[in-house]
Amino acid sequence: MTLTTWETLAAKKRQALRNSIPPEWIVPEHLLPPDSQEDVTGFPESSGWFTPEELAITNSTALELLPKLASGELKSETVTRAFCKRAAAAHQLTNCLSETCFPRALETAQKLDTHLSQTGQPIGPLHGLPISLKDNFNLAGLDATVGFVSHIGDAAKSDSALAQLLAKAGAVFYVKTNVPTAMMIAESVNNVFGRTVSPLNRNLTSGGSSGGESALIAFKGSPWGIGTDIGGSLRIPAACTGIFTLRPSFGRFPTLGCRSGMPGQEAVQSVNGPLTRTLDDLAFWAKTVVDSEPWHADPRCLPIPWRETALETNPGSCKLKIAVMWDDGLAKPTPPVSRALRETVEKLKAKGHEIVEWSSVDQDEGGRLLKRMFLADGGKAIRKEIERSGEPWMEELAMYETATEIGAYEYWQLHLDRVAFQKKYLDRWVASGIDAILCPTTPYSSVENSKFKHVGYTGVYNVLDYSCISFPCGIKVDSKIDSAPGDTYEPLTELDRTIQAEYNAEAVHGMPINLQLVGRRLEEEKVIAMVKVVLDATS
Amino acid sequence: MTLTTWETLAAKKRQALRNSIPPEWIVPEHLLPPDSQEDVTGFPESSGWFTPEELAITNSTALELLPKLASGELKSETVTRAFCKRAAAAHQLTNCLSETCFPRALETAQKLDTHLSQTGQPIGPLHGLPISLKDNFNLAGLDATVGFVSHIGDAAKSDSALAQLLAKAGAVFYVKTNVPTAMMIAESVNNVFGRTVSPLNRNLTSGGSSGGESALIAFKGSPWGIGTDIGGSLRIPAACTGIFTLRPSFGRFPTLGCRSGMPGQEAVQSVNGPLTRTLDDLAFWAKTVVDSEPWHADPRCLPIPWRETALETNPGSCKLKIAVMWDDGLAKPTPPVSRALRETVEKLKAKGHEIVEWSSVDQDEGGRLLKRMFLADGGKAIRKEIERSGEPWMEELAMYETATEIGAYEYWQLHLDRVAFQKKYLDRWVASGIDAILCPTTPYSSVENSKFKHVGYTGVYNVLDYSCISFPCGIKVDSKIDSAPGDTYEPLTELDRTIQAEYNAEAVHGMPINLQLVGRRLEEEKVIAMVKVVLDATS
Repeated sequence: MTLTTWETLAAKKRQALRNSIPPEWIVPEHLLPPDSQEDVTGFPESSGWFTPEELAITNSTALELLPKLASGELKSETVTRAFCKRAAAAHQLTNCLSETCFPRALETAQKLDTHLSQTGQPIGPLHGLPISLKDNFNLAGLDATVGFVSHIGDAAKSDSALAQLLAKAGAVFYVKTNVPTAMMIAESVNNVFGRTVSPLNRNLTSGGSSGGESALIAFKGSPWGIGTDIGGSLRIPAACTGIFTLRPSFGRFPTLGCRSGMPGQEAVQSVNGPLTRTLDDLAFWAKTVVDSEPWHADPRCLPIPWRETALETNPGSCKLKIAVMWDDGLAKPTPPVSRALRETVEKLKAKGHEIVEWSSVDQDEGGRLLKRMFLADGGKAIRKEIERSGEPWMEELAMYETATEIGAYEYWQLHLDRVAFQKKYLDRWVASGIDAILCPTTPYSSVENSKFKHVGYTGVYNVLDYSCISFPCGIKVDSKIDSAPGDTYEPLTELDRTIQAEYNAEAVHGMPINLQLVGRRLEEEKVIAMVKVVLDATS
Repeated sequence: MTLTTWETLAAKKRQALRNSIPPEWIVPEHLLPPDSQEDVTGFPESSGWFTPEELAITNSTALELLPKLASGELKSETVTRAFCKRAAAAHQLTNCLSETCFPRALETAQKLDTHLSQTGQPIGPLHGLPISLKDNFNLAGLDATVGFVSHIGDAAKSDSALAQLLAKAGAVFYVKTNVPTAMMIAESVNNVFGRTVSPLNRNLTSGGSSGGESALIAFKGSPWGIGTDIGGSLRIPAACTGIFTLRPSFGRFPTLGCRSGMPGQEAVQSVNGPLTRTLDDLAFWAKTVVDSEPWHADPRCLPIPWRETALETNPGSCKLKIAVMWDDGLAKPTPPVSRALRETVEKLKAKGHEIVEWSSVDQDEGGRLLKRMFLADGGKAIRKEIERSGEPWMEELAMYETATEIGAYEYWQLHLDRVAFQKKYLDRWVASGIDAILCPTTPYSSVENSKFKHVGYTGVYNVLDYSCISFPCGIKVDSKIDSAPGDTYEPLTELDRTIQAEYNAEAVHGMPINLQLVGRRLEEEKVIAMVKVVLDATS
């Protein structure tokens, strides 16, 4: 018996997180909305707790802030304080943070302000901008528990490669954000910090595994966040909260120095990407990271410079050939997502883009491959951490609890099956001559907490390592239109039956709807440009 | 008991190979040099068996042949027949082939000739050029035994991706070349075809695993060959026969549709590369493959176009910073290799290039990592093939016979160790500001058959996935100068003691000496340009 139980450790950790917020950024009790209030995104404006300047700053996009920071019109310290305060509020309303480093943030900001006033020059393209990071990005002196009690108190010794690179460009780090245990659940819930909810509707999940980020950004507690994606962990939270994300192909952005839920697993690679409120912010983030030549810091980064695309130079006249996958053959999108996809396709057709159908024939195999990759070690990596602290298994991780480890030889067969799958898919793509696939990000707009059930729409593209953007298509759930499928609906699968039965139009009324645009491997520039074209055509 | 023993199967396979050579390309018995004749490279000129035209064609480089083929000055059929004949002679003198497809070759050549005469246009940049392939490149209808008796009679159903791409560019396939069992030995010997020897001295090995290729090319039985490299399998044979090769980083040239000795092993990736007699041929091959955009055919190819380097546009004025690794701390190069390295370094210094020392500190760890990767499946993949036919284990594969399989969890730890190693090495490289590492390719110029012992100089760069060229530095072994280390020599290791004790200056007298120039990952263009600079400085 240890003297300290896992509950005690977790409670102390939560308290320490709470204590790390200075009193001036603790929302006064009487201003807090009642627990029953679903939408808390209006809180900053309605509470009167924020100054007009704080609101103006935090309501800005990164691209609006950066020129002002670079010119000195806005001090980094002012901007940083504003985001620290709004992030602290976001946490109190949605439980989205895992770590804070406000003293480090203010010290960085002050140094940057001094540098600018002394030299007249910004330190880099991100001069003075606060950026939030998913919990698993190492920052020296902070834990990166990834939801495991066992990792409490094991502070990182140095910053992750991507954090180092962003800091060099002028970024200010101030918070890290909550994730699910091992980052292997599509909602953000764990035994250390509990559950993060969506600020748009606290009955709904902000998604996972980058769901602390999505909640924070949807609340405008951060202009930009960085998350990771191994089966949908960027795209699902972006979809659940109506923001933008880019899942890059592996090697485009550095991943070194991030804690993994399954360290060393490489059959499918986890990647890092941005979460933003605008596509322009996302594009600038991506270009900035690549322009910094991350291949000098991370041996697995590819020396591919940022490439302008023909689309970017002439977006208006560009006609795309887009394949639509209406469903994945396993679980139909819920009614609002199907409608959003239909309406988007109609608008694209009206603008002269060529639309073809994309078969879901490969989805099942892709999903099965992903599952084999995740379970290859028989859940050993996760079990090891759970047993170290004695915390209970999360119900959502049941498949890891009962998995059987495979040997290296069988692991090699898995690699062969994956390459054959990648080849088959590539041949289909090349033969079709398409530019992109348009499909749901998930079956949901968002969904009630603990009800997220299917990552097939995202996970297959991890197996393929394709570049994908999940983006808000501008359409919101309307419970009057998006009624549940009737009794005559014939489900595709048992999973589909459950998802459609659980669909609750009232519960998700008003939620933004994301779609997913999929480009080929290492086509990050093109997929960004194509989403611009899609948004131009549909807005 | 099977009715057919492995010996019978192998003997029949060898006979079939022999029978596939038409009578007119079988060297008349009375012209064959005696078995005791070491150097057979003079045979085509001295035997009188070749016509002046056949000699002129086969003595040409690819870049000399291509314009003549494109203009119709030379017919592809004429060129193909000449190389078929010389390759057949090479096989009879060095046992370098594993498969022939002369009828396919002549049919292809005739079609190309017709195309040119009808259209006036070559079909592509390689119009009409015969290219030899290592045994493991699938060609429809031919076996790819990779030295296993069990694979005899299991003909490939389609051509490998690289072969398809080269064929589209106009290449003519006519032979495949011998390898060691599973391609996991540094000489080319197996129970199916036996041993390939060097045409420069038949007491010496042509290296492995692409040693059929190197023997064939050194004999000028092929203008260009393609091989593979997972631990040195391109660079070692190139070094043993004094020709050029490029080990690219993974993803630059397509690998799909090649038979592997350990299918699905990915911790260290096998790569494909050219073997040529000149650097210009090598550069043209590389550019041609990349220009064909192989990422549309192989899902693991990177969409990186061929990039001109600053060096190429102005090689004369370029000053390089080159790190020299004199030995790897495990086995000193034999005396001629050390001398060649010294003399090359002196010449580079004289031309104003900056030379620094490169520590061997990481070599041992890199070599151990590679061994763990090779042995991860406990030799299962190799054992399975050996047991299927009942052929005996090659002595050189002993470590696979006794290895223990690791599970997926331990496999993931290996990945972590590899990434940490790659990061450490990259940091050292970046901090040093060097352009390249210059070091031995192997401890040997070449070595007597069955005495090759150490792949450490090449294998570490497979673990790192760096781009490397092995090139003949223009210096040859001189037994008078390159005498064995005396009794006072203190070996670095037991391995070093054996290698130095076995060094036989007389046996390798006159052999060309290769060195290795190492660039960073995916710096294929730069490493080619740098070898040009080195050759300019030293010739």
